[in-house]
Amino acid sequence: MMRRLSFYERFSRAFQDHPSLVKLLVVFTVSGGGVVAYSESKSYDGMGIVNSSEAEGKKKRVVVLGTGWAGTSFLKNLKNPSYDVQVISPRNYFAFTPLLPSVTCGTVEARSIVEPIRNIIRKKEVDIRYSEAECIKIDAQNKKVYCRSNQGTNLNGDEEFVVDYDYLVIAMGARANTFNTPGVVENCHFLKEVEDAQKIRRSVIDCFERASLPTLNDEDRKKILQFVIVGGGPTGVEFAAELHDFVNEDIVKLYPKVKDLVKITLLEAGDHILNMFDKRITAFAEEKFQRNGIDVKTGSMVVKVSDKEISTKERSGETSSMPYGMVVWSTGIGTRPVVMDFMKQIGQTNRRALATDEWLRVEGCDNVYALGDCATINQRKVMEDISVIFSKADKDNSGTLTVTEFQEVIDDICQRYPQVELYLKNKQMGSIADLLQEPKGDVPKGAIELNIEEFKRAVLHVDSQMKNLPATAQVAAQQGAYLAKCFNRMEEAEKNPEGPLRFRGEGRHRFRPFRYKHLGQFAPLGGEQTAAQLPGDWVSIGHSSQWLWYSVYASKQVSWRTRALVVTDWTRRFVFGRDSSRI
Amino acid sequence: MMRRLSFYERFSRAFQDHPSLVKLLVVFTVSGGGVVAYSESKSYDGMGIVNSSEAEGKKKRVVVLGTGWAGTSFLKNLKNPSYDVQVISPRNYFAFTPLLPSVTCGTVEARSIVEPIRNIIRKKEVDIRYSEAECIKIDAQNKKVYCRSNQGTNLNGDEEFVVDYDYLVIAMGARANTFNTPGVVENCHFLKEVEDAQKIRRSVIDCFERASLPTLNDEDRKKILQFVIVGGGPTGVEFAAELHDFVNEDIVKLYPKVKDLVKITLLEAGDHILNMFDKRITAFAEEKFQRNGIDVKTGSMVVKVSDKEISTKERSGETSSMPYGMVVWSTGIGTRPVVMDFMKQIGQTNRRALATDEWLRVEGCDNVYALGDCATINQRKVMEDISVIFSKADKDNSGTLTVTEFQEVIDDICQRYPQVELYLKNKQMGSIADLLQEPKGDVPKGAIELNIEEFKRAVLHVDSQMKNLPATAQVAAQQGAYLAKCFNRMEEAEKNPEGPLRFRGEGRHRFRPFRYKHLGQFAPLGGEQTAAQLPGDWVSIGHSSQWLWYSVYASKQVSWRTRALVVTDWTRRFVFGRDSSRI
Repeated sequence: MMRRLSFYERFSRAFQDHPSLVKLLVVFTVSGGGVVAYSESKSYDGMGIVNSSEAEGKKKRVVVLGTGWAGTSFLKNLKNPSYDVQVISPRNYFAFTPLLPSVTCGTVEARSIVEPIRNIIRKKEVDIRYSEAECIKIDAQNKKVYCRSNQGTNLNGDEEFVVDYDYLVIAMGARANTFNTPGVVENCHFLKEVEDAQKIRRSVIDCFERASLPTLNDEDRKKILQFVIVGGGPTGVEFAAELHDFVNEDIVKLYPKVKDLVKITLLEAGDHILNMFDKRITAFAEEKFQRNGIDVKTGSMVVKVSDKEISTKERSGETSSMPYGMVVWSTGIGTRPVVMDFMKQIGQTNRRALATDEWLRVEGCDNVYALGDCATINQRKVMEDISVIFSKADKDNSGTLTVTEFQEVIDDICQRYPQVELYLKNKQMGSIADLLQEPKGDVPKGAIELNIEEFKRAVLHVDSQMKNLPATAQVAAQQGAYLAKCFNRMEEAEKNPEGPLRFRGEGRHRFRPFRYKHLGQFAPLGGEQTAAQLPGDWVSIGHSSQWLWYSVYASKQVSWRTRALVVTDWTRRFVFGRDSSRI
Repeated sequence: MMRRLSFYERFSRAFQDHPSLVKLLVVFTVSGGGVVAYSESKSYDGMGIVNSSEAEGKKKRVVVLGTGWAGTSFLKNLKNPSYDVQVISPRNYFAFTPLLPSVTCGTVEARSIVEPIRNIIRKKEVDIRYSEAECIKIDAQNKKVYCRSNQGTNLNGDEEFVVDYDYLVIAMGARANTFNTPGVVENCHFLKEVEDAQKIRRSVIDCFERASLPTLNDEDRKKILQFVIVGGGPTGVEFAAELHDFVNEDIVKLYPKVKDLVKITLLEAGDHILNMFDKRITAFAEEKFQRNGIDVKTGSMVVKVSDKEISTKERSGETSSMPYGMVVWSTGIGTRPVVMDFMKQIGQTNRRALATDEWLRVEGCDNVYALGDCATINQRKVMEDISVIFSKADKDNSGTLTVTEFQEVIDDICQRYPQVELYLKNKQMGSIADLLQEPKGDVPKGAIELNIEEFKRAVLHVDSQMKNLPATAQVAAQQGAYLAKCFNRMEEAEKNPEGPLRFRGEGRHRFRPFRYKHLGQFAPLGGEQTAAQLPGDWVSIGHSSQWLWYSVYASKQVSWRTRALVVTDWTRRFVFGRDSSRI
């Protein structure tokens, strides 16, 4: 995912930084891998200077918007000191978002999953400055970014400023998608930011305290203790599981009578929860939730949320309403207004996210990159380029393609159009010859020759293998690391391009296109059980996957500090349970 | 301070509760004493039932207002199962307030110093229910308390309720005192609640982020990084020290340039900071702060705080203003509106706090007790009762008092009027005979006989020893424990009174009056140095007292959970420093 240091390298580095770490080491034996260790650093200039390129000489100004997975991964992997980097984000920290559902019920503390971005960027090599501000407008024409500090008061109008860039990296993420359902923004909780998780935690406790007030009858209490989760994706499912565990492991001791009045309902518009996972996992999750008393309602679409009731429309067309105490809305992601605005500016309308090419460059702009949840890669179709591919491959201009000719360009094709490789794999074709053989029938492989029409027929279905990448931390982190590596080698790659052949032009692309490597996905289901779907469709469900989950999530932490905190939080939860103080 | 269990008793109890605790025990070797261990408990009824006395039979209804030091200490020490206790507080947790200054800069996490009140009250013996609500009115006439849930919405007007009581325990604490200085409420931070500490922490980081914005000049940055603390008491001093450490140990690494622009100013209206401490401590603190660059301005009274400037008036009469980035106001305590209202109702006007007698009973009410910061003990003067004391002591009604006669009642006098004992001690008088000898001159002790006028002259200065108790956690906790012990023995004491003679009546008082035992006080001064003033005017300053501070504060934690959390927080701070994420 990111650059991996050997365990001993990391160990010894961390040890130099913090001699007292040895006391904590026993805790970490569980943590196998790791992202990047704390790096020692000389002191770094924390002050932003606008238009500092003059001061910095000929350094190229890179502006990074966002400190989430994509932005942080980019910053961590950027090693080339010839850039002058300015980071703009309203959050001065990186948050390990996969643990957000754990924060909602206090299994892990909010502060344990965040690391100050200033701590991450103080590196020896690269000049990186950070400003706590929100980007309010991108002007790609004039290469300017308009920012506003989120501390409005007391600043005499100094809270707005403009930053010039040579390269812009947009990694602002997304916001929760309400599908314009009325009442959602006003009445529902979301689960995208650390603040959201903290609010949910307070609200859960509020519901139990409210239900314990002496004036209420059991009917009222039941209404207050009706927790509704909208969206059966991994986040919604994990929150439902966490809440169930919290109620049954901790709340039951402190609010013993109200425990039986608690109802957790999970609403999913589709046919199944966790529909991006293997069917075995979906089935296991649905069964486990049923056993646990979590009410899973599939095919149920929310049409309205009032301050007291949530209204749904079933597949059958009938609508119904139920009272609730708290609703958590987790149905996927939408576009941030500033990104929407920018998309209009560059003529990308009616899209969910910024379209980029395979090198993460925003289409229709120069030197603007977009990655993470705010972007989608608009993958090039083979069929669009079919004639140029054919003519490039047909070196002798004979009008037909032989296997030998084709074999010379196949690596470039597979690099440029990853769907070709996927197609071959899925069709269990050993070589390109098998692909070309299809339209020809029983001709011996060496003798295959295709004209353009036959070639088109051969690759006709290849583009069906194209899929949009999921909006996950894993994708964002890989994109950030990829882009940083491109930036690190920008000058060398200009001279010695490392990418595939340009079919619609001369020479080669500077870099290989971004290629996502899926490392697997977890779905914690509560009760110390987790479903894991690993590459190669390897599915594992149960307690052992829970321990895999613990060790992967511990190892993926961004610093030794957060790793120590998360592990102590888990330990503390085992020993003392979760805290239910309303703070 | 509270009932002390032997270490082994606590150890084994905690061990039964949590077998996994053994792993953590190495951490706790530092912690010597302790308050009360986690107690196991059968499940308890978490639901409040109004007027539950009917259901409970003849159980006396005790209503406790507040879950601070006084209220919690009362609840923890209450063992008599013949009460039906209802606790009303807007905070569903007990907070270890002496660590609040540590929370402001992240040395300790907010959640580490709180324990859910429901966790504390689930005891075997006594029926205790808790409701998260604020008391809005006390009606002592009809023995009713009016409460309102602080969750206004969604409750259909059910948020208000009335609770009947047989005994009322008022332990609502106090609020910050602004002395009606204009602009304080709007522009200053206070440091009384956990939320206050969390807000301060965010504000400190905000100031540093704001000062790092690229548009500002150094002049602006200096204004933003001007931290002002108003009040040179232990809280203000500790916050100043924490902030200084935070800036110099952690901030300096992340915001290296702005570090030199930071200015911490401590304003104190009196002549010295820490004026309740020994002069050696005051001098040391003032010197240390000067060395650290913390600007201590004594004799400086704040007259106004605008949104940008704080205006002070010096002793000399001249006024001046300075810009600030953040002001923390910590000048002592004021009365809560509901307590003020109650005081009017019962004719206690123009007072700072509810006046009680030495048994913590509110003057002018029946069965209402007040303790902690919302109450002061209106100690009875010897001179007020001088004639009844004389006639009680003068058993043979001779009109004169002999040493023998006096010796028979001296124990009762010392119990009823603790100032007598203090006076003897301060004057280094060995026995009561020395006191009586004063007005008589060189008469042999056995032959002393005093008439009433001579007796008056003998005890004339005794009342000068009376002092109001300080508004500290220590006093509140001792009062809570004392009151609980009275409640535990209420019935036996009715039959066999254990208190001193009633001089203005027949028989004996039911209980001994409350007597405060001062165990010493700490003033952390930063840089791992603490000043400690222990009983017997034993003063210790430096690193050794810091370790004493660590071990006392660890041992005084309310539960093993918070103890473990606080100790890990300290450890984490040593290893990784403080976190500066703005969450």
